[in-house]
Amino acid sequence: MNHTEAMSSHTGVLFRVSTFGESHGPAIGVIVDGCPPRLPLDESDIQPDLDRRRPGQSRLVTQRDEADRCRILSGVWKGYTTGAPIAIVVENADHRSGAYDHLVDVYRPSHADFTYDAKYGIRSIAGGGRSSARETIARVAAGAIARKLLRTVAGIEVIGWVSAVGGIDAASAIDTATVAMADVEAHPTRCPDPAFAERFAAEIDAARRAGDSVGGIVTCVARGVPAGLGEPAFDRLDADLAKAVMSLPATKAIEIGSGFAAAAMRGSEHNDPFEPGPDGRPRTTTNRSGGVQGGISNGADVVLRAAFKPTATINHEQATVTRDGSPTTLAATGRHDPCVVPRAVPLVESAMLLTLADHYLRHRAIDVLGPVDVD
Amino acid sequence: MNHTEAMSSHTGVLFRVSTFGESHGPAIGVIVDGCPPRLPLDESDIQPDLDRRRPGQSRLVTQRDEADRCRILSGVWKGYTTGAPIAIVVENADHRSGAYDHLVDVYRPSHADFTYDAKYGIRSIAGGGRSSARETIARVAAGAIARKLLRTVAGIEVIGWVSAVGGIDAASAIDTATVAMADVEAHPTRCPDPAFAERFAAEIDAARRAGDSVGGIVTCVARGVPAGLGEPAFDRLDADLAKAVMSLPATKAIEIGSGFAAAAMRGSEHNDPFEPGPDGRPRTTTNRSGGVQGGISNGADVVLRAAFKPTATINHEQATVTRDGSPTTLAATGRHDPCVVPRAVPLVESAMLLTLADHYLRHRAIDVLGPVDVD
Amino acid sequence: MNHTEAMSSHTGVLFRVSTFGESHGPAIGVIVDGCPPRLPLDESDIQPDLDRRRPGQSRLVTQRDEADRCRILSGVWKGYTTGAPIAIVVENADHRSGAYDHLVDVYRPSHADFTYDAKYGIRSIAGGGRSSARETIARVAAGAIARKLLRTVAGIEVIGWVSAVGGIDAASAIDTATVAMADVEAHPTRCPDPAFAERFAAEIDAARRAGDSVGGIVTCVARGVPAGLGEPAFDRLDADLAKAVMSLPATKAIEIGSGFAAAAMRGSEHNDPFEPGPDGRPRTTTNRSGGVQGGISNGADVVLRAAFKPTATINHEQATVTRDGSPTTLAATGRHDPCVVPRAVPLVESAMLLTLADHYLRHRAIDVLGPVDVD
Amino acid sequence: MNHTEAMSSHTGVLFRVSTFGESHGPAIGVIVDGCPPRLPLDESDIQPDLDRRRPGQSRLVTQRDEADRCRILSGVWKGYTTGAPIAIVVENADHRSGAYDHLVDVYRPSHADFTYDAKYGIRSIAGGGRSSARETIARVAAGAIARKLLRTVAGIEVIGWVSAVGGIDAASAIDTATVAMADVEAHPTRCPDPAFAERFAAEIDAARRAGDSVGGIVTCVARGVPAGLGEPAFDRLDADLAKAVMSLPATKAIEIGSGFAAAAMRGSEHNDPFEPGPDGRPRTTTNRSGGVQGGISNGADVVLRAAFKPTATINHEQATVTRDGSPTTLAATGRHDPCVVPRAVPLVESAMLLTLADHYLRHRAIDVLGPVDVD
Repeated sequence: MNHTEAMSSHTGVLFRVSTFGESHGPAIGVIVDGCPPRLPLDESDIQPDLDRRRPGQSRLVTQRDEADRCRILSGVWKGYTTGAPIAIVVENADHRSGAYDHLVDVYRPSHADFTYDAKYGIRSIAGGGRSSARETIARVAAGAIARKLLRTVAGIEVIGWVSAVGGIDAASAIDTATVAMADVEAHPTRCPDPAFAERFAAEIDAARRAGDSVGGIVTCVARGVPAGLGEPAFDRLDADLAKAVMSLPATKAIEIGSGFAAAAMRGSEHNDPFEPGPDGRPRTTTNRSGGVQGGISNGADVVLRAAFKPTATINHEQATVTRDGSPTTLAATGRHDPCVVPRAVPLVESAMLLTLADHYLRHRAIDVLGPVDVD
Repeated sequence: MNHTEAMSSHTGVLFRVSTFGESHGPAIGVIVDGCPPRLPLDESDIQPDLDRRRPGQSRLVTQRDEADRCRILSGVWKGYTTGAPIAIVVENADHRSGAYDHLVDVYRPSHADFTYDAKYGIRSIAGGGRSSARETIARVAAGAIARKLLRTVAGIEVIGWVSAVGGIDAASAIDTATVAMADVEAHPTRCPDPAFAERFAAEIDAARRAGDSVGGIVTCVARGVPAGLGEPAFDRLDADLAKAVMSLPATKAIEIGSGFAAAAMRGSEHNDPFEPGPDGRPRTTTNRSGGVQGGISNGADVVLRAAFKPTATINHEQATVTRDGSPTTLAATGRHDPCVVPRAVPLVESAMLLTLADHYLRHRAIDVLGPVDVD
Repeated sequence: MNHTEAMSSHTGVLFRVSTFGESHGPAIGVIVDGCPPRLPLDESDIQPDLDRRRPGQSRLVTQRDEADRCRILSGVWKGYTTGAPIAIVVENADHRSGAYDHLVDVYRPSHADFTYDAKYGIRSIAGGGRSSARETIARVAAGAIARKLLRTVAGIEVIGWVSAVGGIDAASAIDTATVAMADVEAHPTRCPDPAFAERFAAEIDAARRAGDSVGGIVTCVARGVPAGLGEPAFDRLDADLAKAVMSLPATKAIEIGSGFAAAAMRGSEHNDPFEPGPDGRPRTTTNRSGGVQGGISNGADVVLRAAFKPTATINHEQATVTRDGSPTTLAATGRHDPCVVPRAVPLVESAMLLTLADHYLRHRAIDVLGPVDVD
Repeated sequence: MNHTEAMSSHTGVLFRVSTFGESHGPAIGVIVDGCPPRLPLDESDIQPDLDRRRPGQSRLVTQRDEADRCRILSGVWKGYTTGAPIAIVVENADHRSGAYDHLVDVYRPSHADFTYDAKYGIRSIAGGGRSSARETIARVAAGAIARKLLRTVAGIEVIGWVSAVGGIDAASAIDTATVAMADVEAHPTRCPDPAFAERFAAEIDAARRAGDSVGGIVTCVARGVPAGLGEPAFDRLDADLAKAVMSLPATKAIEIGSGFAAAAMRGSEHNDPFEPGPDGRPRTTTNRSGGVQGGISNGADVVLRAAFKPTATINHEQATVTRDGSPTTLAATGRHDPCVVPRAVPLVESAMLLTLADHYLRHRAIDVLGPVDVD
């Protein structure tokens, strides 16, 4: 065996996801346990999201080619889920560890090299960004199953896009309520506004030419979420969304609804008034809550924004230390991905999808008794 | 029985916290299960943090007086923890539900009234902000135990403060690395910079006089965290911190380290170079990572910022709907808390403390084998 | 604080139970989190099971008088559950620790004194049997809520009885399918067969007169369990029942259905043939499976038997060692409970009830899609 | 995709195991998450236990040949665990579903066919016993990792054997304290007593010739378990062992230590006296407790016995019903395994190993503070 970075683990109470695999091992994979039976599902439901995650063909994203074909190993029979755990594996076509041999004794700045070593006491070559990016295959595959489930049982749709790159913010040009996936996928930057998309492309290209990288923001919205999903205390819907998104590589911040802007507002500006909706149920006339109030969905679009730092791998010389504590210099590298934010869009979607699928099932479990009239 | 809002639940893998209680029931409480035995502990370790959370004496925070005396019911013997679950109860001195009778049929904007009703199908009077504020007693009590544990086993200290109120941001005036709790507690706004503290007080007072409320930001830092706490995938330390903080009432956003600013930066600006530290181990010369890299602590201060929305209860007339779907107007109320942010400081601390205590114990569990030399 | 033994913790995925409290602390309690809202509930649903658990008035069981009045602190409003955690507390009327001072330095044989000390490194006076018996108040209270839920949503009834004491086994005289709780409660031994009840009473009395104790067997049945509860692998219904029952104090064995007798049988004797049931669904003509096949309920009665060892506290002199490792003799004690088995009946019921309630809700969560026709 | 039975899921708090795979799908697999880093490990640590589980060469067990070669996909680097999830996959060489087509519409008695259908609403061919036997590959592979860990960190050894087949019980001829694995593996029945081994073989052969099957008992012992593993309430060591063992296919009962015999004993017979051990720590002079007191290990051998029912697949005609509820007859089948008990030995060992590994790590996590002197 010759693989390396630690990329673990488990999330979800009822829609449970366990991932495994390192970029330099033979395969990446995931088990989805708790998916309801009788859901139509095959590889064609999963591959499109994997393809969206995959490093692309344009100069804006990394140039490596990875097939990333998924294979369902269990839990599906004649096109339907059986209730058994669904295992999905994606083989690593090219897992030479030799490519990182020169890094064995040097901690790359702002990668996970040092922290993994501090935690596990065993040097894992090639930790940090690139490896992490590959681990997300497992999450995206699981998220695709959640997408199919949520669409089928509740008509919920989740869509994300790039709303800022570097200092350029396109938020004012994008109507969160109406963005369609076709708008997003129309441009390699995944910005649905064509003018900003071009500006983002130029910014990314400038960073690439400078041997540098650049950060950005992904906005993601869930439409059709019924009121009532979430919990009032620790497992608030917004808290679980925050955890899911902040567990993605390179995230540094998350906002729900008004986010940091709320800190500067008065209550009279921030409160969302209610009005009767077309179905007679209350709806808010504004959505500063971002679809969540008191930790529970209110039927409005759930809206979040996530900040991604610039890729840590850059083509600059950097000061660092060796594994035995001596100061040294990390040489400029060759190939690098100047901006992960376009590829992060399906990751943020998968974080939302997994969280919503789990809370959807959790809510089902307690909604077992008829109405009561208490006053 | 005549109490009300739902405030539940459970967090933590090894340092496990379960809370219960409604503001209009007889008591609020918490069970802390998994606290190591042989930790010196009594009520005097817990009461000070509860007192910090309690609505204060100044005009800046709400005027109600609550004694909030904690009582340990189990898990402590002759001044030491026994390894058994530690139950703590705080009685509600004044739990009249009548005070909210006029709200039974009206959904208050941006409270949890509607979403609780949508989830549970039973009208819980007095949901939302104030009730939630009271539920946090349980978390602060648990956090105080985590504080004692972390201090005792690892010398970790967690301290938070108010860094912004309304549009006024004091971040530039405050040195995160050196703020002491005495600086914070010196002013009722909990801003350690005296000049900004006065400006915050004026802003809060202005909101109060306008019958309005105002949001703000809490910054919180953990010092002395050893490298190696956290997990690489779903249970990243930053992800679990994000969840813990975003599960506090009225939070809308969280940043770790550079936060949203990272999105506008280049990699060459954002990367934290390593240098040999005084103990020979690597340390970063800057801390844009906020003490976490790849989901695992790197030994630097863990730094986060959380945004709180303005209190939803305001003394203005507001449009809303009744429980049966008719449009109506919510009358201006009397007493309200114009700014919860100063009181939120111990809540954010408790969120950090509980998360760190759990990850500290989790790391202990896997660190059982001697060093190996692999290259 | 002056209380002692460790009695912890947490069980359940959706119907979640956390207990706390020591026999010599101020109170025993439990939080039930995840109980569906809108269930009619008050203390009168809980007290009867607590009274059944309580040491009785007859000479067959221990003579202490404990009121054990339960008090609901949260989660119930105007007679209905709200979906919030339900906290229940029972005060310890008489919690003098002095009664055990002479035991501080001696490990009582077959109590938990030594193992608690080995685990927690802090001497907990009065560990083991009696303390454990008192901890079960919390489980019985939680079980009473599960009983109300299962009865309301599914018509499930759980009933247990004493089927053996000492070497006397009444199984052949009792029809598992028809025993009613009135039959069980008609005699202090909780044996529904009057003749065997008298023999059990005589056996217990003989042990008491000899300053000794005696073990026995509890049989417990759940009627009305729908087919489909359970999981196929680790969380099999029979496995979770085994864990729940084996976590009760003094249990040494458990059987489901045929139990150990199965080991001596041929498949042609043991298999349960199917026939069409009155509702057209398959049912088994025999029930050697004990209502569970492949880890999942099959609609037949779920039947289990649990063995309880004789109480460790006896009125005999016994060889043991002191805390510092010296051999010594434990003097004969005075008062003791010669047979816990009659009081264990509500404990075994609560173990079944909690397990079934959790699996009932878990099954609800996955049963969200319509039928499919696959062949 | 054309595979079938549901075989799921997840166990463990810190040493976490998730399995997947159906006997008629492409592969069976497992993720072990939470294994400490720096443990020497490769496939050669795992394959021997898989080979022991595999249907054998003798006439006593099923005749199919399965290579069952394991492949580690992640979590191991240069012969050491990295702390990342360890994924292991075993391919199914021959997964024709056609072999079961005639069973699609018939529920086999005492298999899981009907209950899976009741739970999942989708007919899974070939459920029940045989399929389940194949799922246990995943558990045995995980158990082999636990075995290596426990041996390395604590010198714990777990060994099981067949102690009864049909009505023949060899317990009196076997000294639990001294059985060695070589004794067990010396005979295809896995009975360490040669005379009883021959009698078991004759009994199994007789059942086979009669087209029938026969049950039996596995005894399993863990030696070297330190005092202090377990929890006092729900997660008692004996309760978790009971769950783990009862989650194996075909188990109907479990005993710890004295087991059902305890029910017939007096306390004066059953109590285990303490004496000073050779290391100065207390040890029991007898072991009716089976190494667990109050839910926590006491340093003595942990001893359990598990009853397995006779295989449900027999070569007899049986009454049953079709999927649409009509009575029918299940024809006699050809090949079948007359007794699974010898092959169940490594399964019971893996159940013990996984439980002990989890509790070992859990205990490490709370044992973080120095000794205190409280009286």
